[in-house]
Amino acid sequence: MVTGKTTQDMSKRAQTPLQLSFYRVIFGTETRAGKWFDIILIMVILASVMVIMLDSIHEYHINYGVLFLQIEWAFTLMFTAEYLIRLWCSDNRKGYAISVYGIVDLLALMPTYLSLLLPQAAPLLIIRVLRILRIFRVLRLLALLDEANDLARALHNSTRKIFVFFSMMILMATIFGCLIYVIEGPEHGFNSIPHSIYWAIVTITTVGYGDVVPMTPMGQVLSAVGMLMGYAVIAVPTGIVTAELTLAQRLHKERAIRAARNCTTCAHVESDPEAVYCRHCGSSLPAPGHQPEDEA
Amino acid sequence: MVTGKTTQDMSKRAQTPLQLSFYRVIFGTETRAGKWFDIILIMVILASVMVIMLDSIHEYHINYGVLFLQIEWAFTLMFTAEYLIRLWCSDNRKGYAISVYGIVDLLALMPTYLSLLLPQAAPLLIIRVLRILRIFRVLRLLALLDEANDLARALHNSTRKIFVFFSMMILMATIFGCLIYVIEGPEHGFNSIPHSIYWAIVTITTVGYGDVVPMTPMGQVLSAVGMLMGYAVIAVPTGIVTAELTLAQRLHKERAIRAARNCTTCAHVESDPEAVYCRHCGSSLPAPGHQPEDEA
Amino acid sequence: MVTGKTTQDMSKRAQTPLQLSFYRVIFGTETRAGKWFDIILIMVILASVMVIMLDSIHEYHINYGVLFLQIEWAFTLMFTAEYLIRLWCSDNRKGYAISVYGIVDLLALMPTYLSLLLPQAAPLLIIRVLRILRIFRVLRLLALLDEANDLARALHNSTRKIFVFFSMMILMATIFGCLIYVIEGPEHGFNSIPHSIYWAIVTITTVGYGDVVPMTPMGQVLSAVGMLMGYAVIAVPTGIVTAELTLAQRLHKERAIRAARNCTTCAHVESDPEAVYCRHCGSSLPAPGHQPEDEA
Amino acid sequence: MVTGKTTQDMSKRAQTPLQLSFYRVIFGTETRAGKWFDIILIMVILASVMVIMLDSIHEYHINYGVLFLQIEWAFTLMFTAEYLIRLWCSDNRKGYAISVYGIVDLLALMPTYLSLLLPQAAPLLIIRVLRILRIFRVLRLLALLDEANDLARALHNSTRKIFVFFSMMILMATIFGCLIYVIEGPEHGFNSIPHSIYWAIVTITTVGYGDVVPMTPMGQVLSAVGMLMGYAVIAVPTGIVTAELTLAQRLHKERAIRAARNCTTCAHVESDPEAVYCRHCGSSLPAPGHQPEDEA
Repeated sequence: MVTGKTTQDMSKRAQTPLQLSFYRVIFGTETRAGKWFDIILIMVILASVMVIMLDSIHEYHINYGVLFLQIEWAFTLMFTAEYLIRLWCSDNRKGYAISVYGIVDLLALMPTYLSLLLPQAAPLLIIRVLRILRIFRVLRLLALLDEANDLARALHNSTRKIFVFFSMMILMATIFGCLIYVIEGPEHGFNSIPHSIYWAIVTITTVGYGDVVPMTPMGQVLSAVGMLMGYAVIAVPTGIVTAELTLAQRLHKERAIRAARNCTTCAHVESDPEAVYCRHCGSSLPAPGHQPEDEA
Repeated sequence: MVTGKTTQDMSKRAQTPLQLSFYRVIFGTETRAGKWFDIILIMVILASVMVIMLDSIHEYHINYGVLFLQIEWAFTLMFTAEYLIRLWCSDNRKGYAISVYGIVDLLALMPTYLSLLLPQAAPLLIIRVLRILRIFRVLRLLALLDEANDLARALHNSTRKIFVFFSMMILMATIFGCLIYVIEGPEHGFNSIPHSIYWAIVTITTVGYGDVVPMTPMGQVLSAVGMLMGYAVIAVPTGIVTAELTLAQRLHKERAIRAARNCTTCAHVESDPEAVYCRHCGSSLPAPGHQPEDEA
Repeated sequence: MVTGKTTQDMSKRAQTPLQLSFYRVIFGTETRAGKWFDIILIMVILASVMVIMLDSIHEYHINYGVLFLQIEWAFTLMFTAEYLIRLWCSDNRKGYAISVYGIVDLLALMPTYLSLLLPQAAPLLIIRVLRILRIFRVLRLLALLDEANDLARALHNSTRKIFVFFSMMILMATIFGCLIYVIEGPEHGFNSIPHSIYWAIVTITTVGYGDVVPMTPMGQVLSAVGMLMGYAVIAVPTGIVTAELTLAQRLHKERAIRAARNCTTCAHVESDPEAVYCRHCGSSLPAPGHQPEDEA
Repeated sequence: MVTGKTTQDMSKRAQTPLQLSFYRVIFGTETRAGKWFDIILIMVILASVMVIMLDSIHEYHINYGVLFLQIEWAFTLMFTAEYLIRLWCSDNRKGYAISVYGIVDLLALMPTYLSLLLPQAAPLLIIRVLRILRIFRVLRLLALLDEANDLARALHNSTRKIFVFFSMMILMATIFGCLIYVIEGPEHGFNSIPHSIYWAIVTITTVGYGDVVPMTPMGQVLSAVGMLMGYAVIAVPTGIVTAELTLAQRLHKERAIRAARNCTTCAHVESDPEAVYCRHCGSSLPAPGHQPEDEA
């Protein structure tokens, strides 16, 4: 998202023909080579993510840990080369480097190199975090999903409503959590208010793990009320998103109507883009796209 | 909600200039100071709620209980001062005191003072209830969520349908609960009809704790039917809310069409608020907002 | 539902004035007494259901079983009297007796009398069934929910689609159940295909009891696919019901437009029921409800 | 689906009168015999599926295994006969054989015959797979569900959006799975990243088995966020499907408006198919279905 904007805003750098052809393949999707580059990149990202996942399984790590490390280094060198080529051939190096995807690209490289600097006895958590950070390479796939932007925009339009919805959900969970904490108490597994609020969220969202459940009749009545409310309240975000999407469709249609032509003889509005003659007076219509003077 | 209404209905009290400036800061949101007051108030409420939550965790209560008590007293004194200033500078003291938020403000103060009056050996439940009551301070945040009122109105319009929906859900749960009680019985954990109805609600709302599950094939068939019904029935509240929100959008649009202007020459209806000339006869249109005589 | 229809279709019986006044109170809801009768009846039904529920709790049955039995007999005699009075004052005795609510009324009485005929050592299941049958008295409340009929009609319009939806859900559950049975097998708790299908329904409807869960990686991948499909497929009934409700609204609106009046002077269509003069030519409009000749 | 297409595309074979009458009964649904054939076929398929299911229950397999095997052979011979007759009387043998339903028909026969070829000590898994494969006979019922095709088409129109939705769900589950793996780790049951992603899918889709649950406060906060997001995100597919279905309704309505007639005297558009006279000028309208020249 940010990439496109920054390259437009900042002054573009002159590219050599070689840089330009690399640029077209790596950043573009119009050419045949550009499409193949994208497809191969997706494959490589998924393969590298797969290796990290398999490495996290204990038995595989014991048996194939060394192999996985070698593969990981191969992938890291490939991604490093890709990152450097992207920087080299970009028409706006700084713009790419500070764009969202530029930072994701860099973050996906760092952990492997950082692991070299770690002392032998590094805390397990840090090793684990470094290993996992690499998996965020999958985020690079987002750039390839055009429609993700459409959905993101639809969600963005409803941001304030969604914020209010989540605020009310958390308020509801807080109240239910407090009530169940008073009713059931630590003796039935509701150890603290935060833990009870966690239980309330598990219940209201209809997840229902079942690790903590109400034991007393009063607690069961309360949680039944919470479940029914949660079950019904899901209608609210659905209604918001559906109304938003339906509105988008209607606006799209109205824009089509605004693109309608007026007959130059009788001023009849023709919204059918395929019509050639006015359906009111029979005189020939102006070609679509031609805007009469009395329209804005 | 009630605040605004009561202050309008009742006779307003004359305020001194000092009271008026305090009033603008505390009750209003238009001035810079008023906005900052609201933001600081939200922070303080959230902080005080956080302290109550942390105090409910056993280890923290043991280690920092005294500190939490001191912080709690500081918050209580602050809220007491705020409550008294609100009363003092309000243009309608009684109206504020009996309004929903006035009562919530008062209830949020009481428990701390009441805890002083409690005997040393007060029952655990009463202590717990008093502690929890303070957490309902979060309800004050509701006043700051404008859009919560919009959603509340949308739900209010569908009240009767929602009531019918919940009645049918409870009826459905009662029938499924009774059937499972007959089929599975106390020997499989379905101890009583109320407990079986609780299980039915857990199942139909798709929460599914798993603390009680059907063991017999018959019971599993019955619960599968209940799950599928519950899974499909969720469409009903969603449909109601979506239809309500879509209707609200359409009414909004129709109101816009009613605000359309008539051309004074040819009576053509112009709904585009940006049009300057009639698209039918070319004469200049009246300015938007000017209502022709033949409109209501 | 059937009551109203049968009484219209069949020949009505002549009622004495006393019968008629009883009829108005018991069957009607227009008079003050009729409304109070309904409210008291709801209270009595809910009270009797409450007693049956409490009696199903073991401790209460031990301690208050005799009291509950006496209360139950009091309720049964009351409902018997009500049933006989309904039969006596009805303008169509047979119609009432074979109507849905007539049968429900009778079925709600039978179990208590039947329990007298049971031998001392009756099987536990039969006793339990008889006790539970009485709880179906709550079904009588359905007659009092007008809007339940509206929802029932909306669902009725989509019957075929809902049937197809459930068929596909069961087909999907069958396929997922078979696959998981092959993958996990009896050694991980998936004892048989029917049990595996039950698990698949628990998973796809997002209930998720957790009594049987996949253990093998393959099984977890399969169930993850099932969950995501179930999570998305819920959109189908929601879309169907919402589209149905939106269509109902639109038809309602179109019916309103058809009720619009034509100006007798210039034939302009006026859909605003409050307009008095034609907004096109200024001549006075016909009164609403008056249909011009060229309309059907 | 494929059947209809291939028979049209390929050259039809000449059928003898006997073949034709068999064809009408087996492939057609217009004749009385054709309908009965379909109903009986559904019954037989459901019965054979029922037998396979019962055979998978251990006790029944021990007691009635031989009987089930005999019934299974009877069904297999029946389905073989049906398959051969279908091939014989089809007007396009190859087209049927390579159609979806032709392959399903064949696959439903194979396992029973293949079981004859299996050595006595065949691996349990293969025996189980063969047994289960036969259950996919239920897929043949799909051909009989007309509306399934409607729903399938509606889903097909949204394929790309649904693909994007699932991609984002899996991306979301990957990120939540990685975070919980770092926070909770193998010591709390989150053994590996794939297993943690499985947990994330179980949580986000609100299934919530409860076999693995977060133990640490941080993990519980993270999973609460995941639940709330999953709870809200379900609105997206619902919105997509609802908007798609609403659009289908609107297109249907617009097609009806396009079928409107123009008055030959005053060019007024009449969309009411039952109107006989123009509501604008009173001259008689052309009959419905007659298209004026200026329409496409």
